[in-house]
Amino acid sequence: MLEKRYLFTPGPTPVPPQVLAALAEPVVHHRGPDFMRIYERCLGRLKEVFRTERDVLMYGSSGSGTMESAIANLCSPGDRVVVAVAGNFGLRWAEIARAYGVDVDTLEYEWGDTPTAEDLAARLKELGDATAVFLTQSETSTGVVCDVQAMAAAAREAGAITVVDAVSSLGAVPLETDAWGIDVVVSGSQKALMTPPGIAMVTASEEAWALRERSRSPTYYFDWERTRKAQAELDAPFTPPVSLVVALDVALGLLLDGGLETAFERHVRLGRACRAGIKAMGLELFSPDDDSAAVVTAVRVPEGVDGDKLVLGLRDRFGMTLAGGQGPLKGKIFRIGHIGWFDVFDIATALAGVELALMEAGADIERGVAVTRALDAWEEPARV
Amino acid sequence: MLEKRYLFTPGPTPVPPQVLAALAEPVVHHRGPDFMRIYERCLGRLKEVFRTERDVLMYGSSGSGTMESAIANLCSPGDRVVVAVAGNFGLRWAEIARAYGVDVDTLEYEWGDTPTAEDLAARLKELGDATAVFLTQSETSTGVVCDVQAMAAAAREAGAITVVDAVSSLGAVPLETDAWGIDVVVSGSQKALMTPPGIAMVTASEEAWALRERSRSPTYYFDWERTRKAQAELDAPFTPPVSLVVALDVALGLLLDGGLETAFERHVRLGRACRAGIKAMGLELFSPDDDSAAVVTAVRVPEGVDGDKLVLGLRDRFGMTLAGGQGPLKGKIFRIGHIGWFDVFDIATALAGVELALMEAGADIERGVAVTRALDAWEEPARV
Repeated sequence: MLEKRYLFTPGPTPVPPQVLAALAEPVVHHRGPDFMRIYERCLGRLKEVFRTERDVLMYGSSGSGTMESAIANLCSPGDRVVVAVAGNFGLRWAEIARAYGVDVDTLEYEWGDTPTAEDLAARLKELGDATAVFLTQSETSTGVVCDVQAMAAAAREAGAITVVDAVSSLGAVPLETDAWGIDVVVSGSQKALMTPPGIAMVTASEEAWALRERSRSPTYYFDWERTRKAQAELDAPFTPPVSLVVALDVALGLLLDGGLETAFERHVRLGRACRAGIKAMGLELFSPDDDSAAVVTAVRVPEGVDGDKLVLGLRDRFGMTLAGGQGPLKGKIFRIGHIGWFDVFDIATALAGVELALMEAGADIERGVAVTRALDAWEEPARV
Repeated sequence: MLEKRYLFTPGPTPVPPQVLAALAEPVVHHRGPDFMRIYERCLGRLKEVFRTERDVLMYGSSGSGTMESAIANLCSPGDRVVVAVAGNFGLRWAEIARAYGVDVDTLEYEWGDTPTAEDLAARLKELGDATAVFLTQSETSTGVVCDVQAMAAAAREAGAITVVDAVSSLGAVPLETDAWGIDVVVSGSQKALMTPPGIAMVTASEEAWALRERSRSPTYYFDWERTRKAQAELDAPFTPPVSLVVALDVALGLLLDGGLETAFERHVRLGRACRAGIKAMGLELFSPDDDSAAVVTAVRVPEGVDGDKLVLGLRDRFGMTLAGGQGPLKGKIFRIGHIGWFDVFDIATALAGVELALMEAGADIERGVAVTRALDAWEEPARV
């Protein structure tokens, strides 16, 4: 019972103590002035984090809830859309859209490949009539971060709006909603926003709102207009998860006080440190070996080792939660998340745990070299 | 800033300190053993509170989310359903159903009236083809609790299933889901379950699951089958609000340790105490003057007093949050919630606040008599 716990998954992520303390505050009424002050500030901070002048709508749900909100508000049965699929969360876009009778054209990649603007432009040209493109900025299942700026430009060129799942990327890697012309961005509280799961958000461009006017899909809880109207009065159409909102406000304050650029730089360095350590152990990266992989480091499990058993062993031996592989990658990779409230010592701890577990499984690894190289790589930018 | 806060609204409601403390625990991964143990226990406790042997499905949303889940899973465009409307939350059922293209027949009452099984039976007979009946056990906007047992029997007689909004009633007044033959019950965490808002639940009978098989409405996040399948593996289809689940588990433990019957009895006595105090002040009740009104006490605002101003004054002068009237009752009533973590001293405090505010507004009230009568009424059952 005295065992410490280490949360190294790509979500939910560790939550700072100030944010946890805010969760324990007495519940306030969502229509009282105590809450409305916090709500207003939190909605304003979300706009800063989303880098948008538009409203950011807040929902009590997981990120998949606001993903569904995008489909339900933007699409009608028979509409043609393109979904880039290179992992589990791309598949989710396609699955939700199909549940709404949308005519889904998937731009399919091997899991672990990086979708490109060129492929998207070609597909959109071929189709000619797609109304919307659904993208995953950070594909949490593979560690790949794609260039949504270039892809949004390709979509706009073809007359389609761009919808981006930024659940695991917002606040970790740059996303310029307005400047890059991203029409719709959805995200959630439980990744780089350093808050427990339970809040999801979405923001939409005027073009997206115009599409919404034409949508014939039924929706109520996730109807954007109902939430926009209420938020304009600092109200919510349904009782919001007030404790989580109070916590999110504290977390966003921490993030913005430090500065978004600082957070982005830290994530790049965390990714570098993690990759350096993994390679020093002689392991092979599954996620890209470059600075784009700033969110999740995915690692191929060495020959003769079962990835799921490795993850279970880390959990049972060291109280350390890493993520295994999903879908076709089950048992073949493990994933170290470094999203949000992480520093290099968390990376060192995760690497040390993996090293101990692999050595016990018979791997030939030089003790301590992973941690050493990780610390080296972390320091590098300071030396450049 | 040193002002104390008193939350006397019918939701969100005060949360016990043990539950708040649980919220501040470090976040755990939803697929790890630490969480799965809690999740399993919490799902089991929900079955006890819902008085059902069936699965209780858990969602990250407000109660309106699981209300929508019932419509989306049970209804198709053109289906005929009956909704009993005697206040704001009956209207919500109708509004959600209409958003899904359902042919809604409303059994309309004046706000404050109590829907009856006789009226429902007559309407169902007249229509002949209704597939489902949507009810509100505790109409939070008026304080009326209706006899869902008798109404469910009338629905069954007519071949329709019964769907009950028990958001503000579950855990406060008796609801025997299985024994009364209620097909679907929806509820939320933030009322008598003594947890912050952000979790909603739903349970469904075999007849309801059979209707779901035929539904042609699109739904994804709220698709019951997806959640049932996942929960069978102690998993969730989407990252659940883990901190709220941990808190809910603690709150349900408190509720069940004390015993549901004890909670029901306490709510009856709280209602008696509140009504006795209100009448002692010479005020007129809007909610029924009997033991059915165990959830919310609604009070007519005296001649010459603006109800909304009264509520604002209580908030600004004493840090005390009561609820005003909704819809046609705006400004005409105020409401004292006594759901969940309330005892008679909370009632006394609320009454004392109302007394002070009304005396300042020029009302002729004998100082202290409301609190005295409330304490008397609270003690009564012990003397019977």
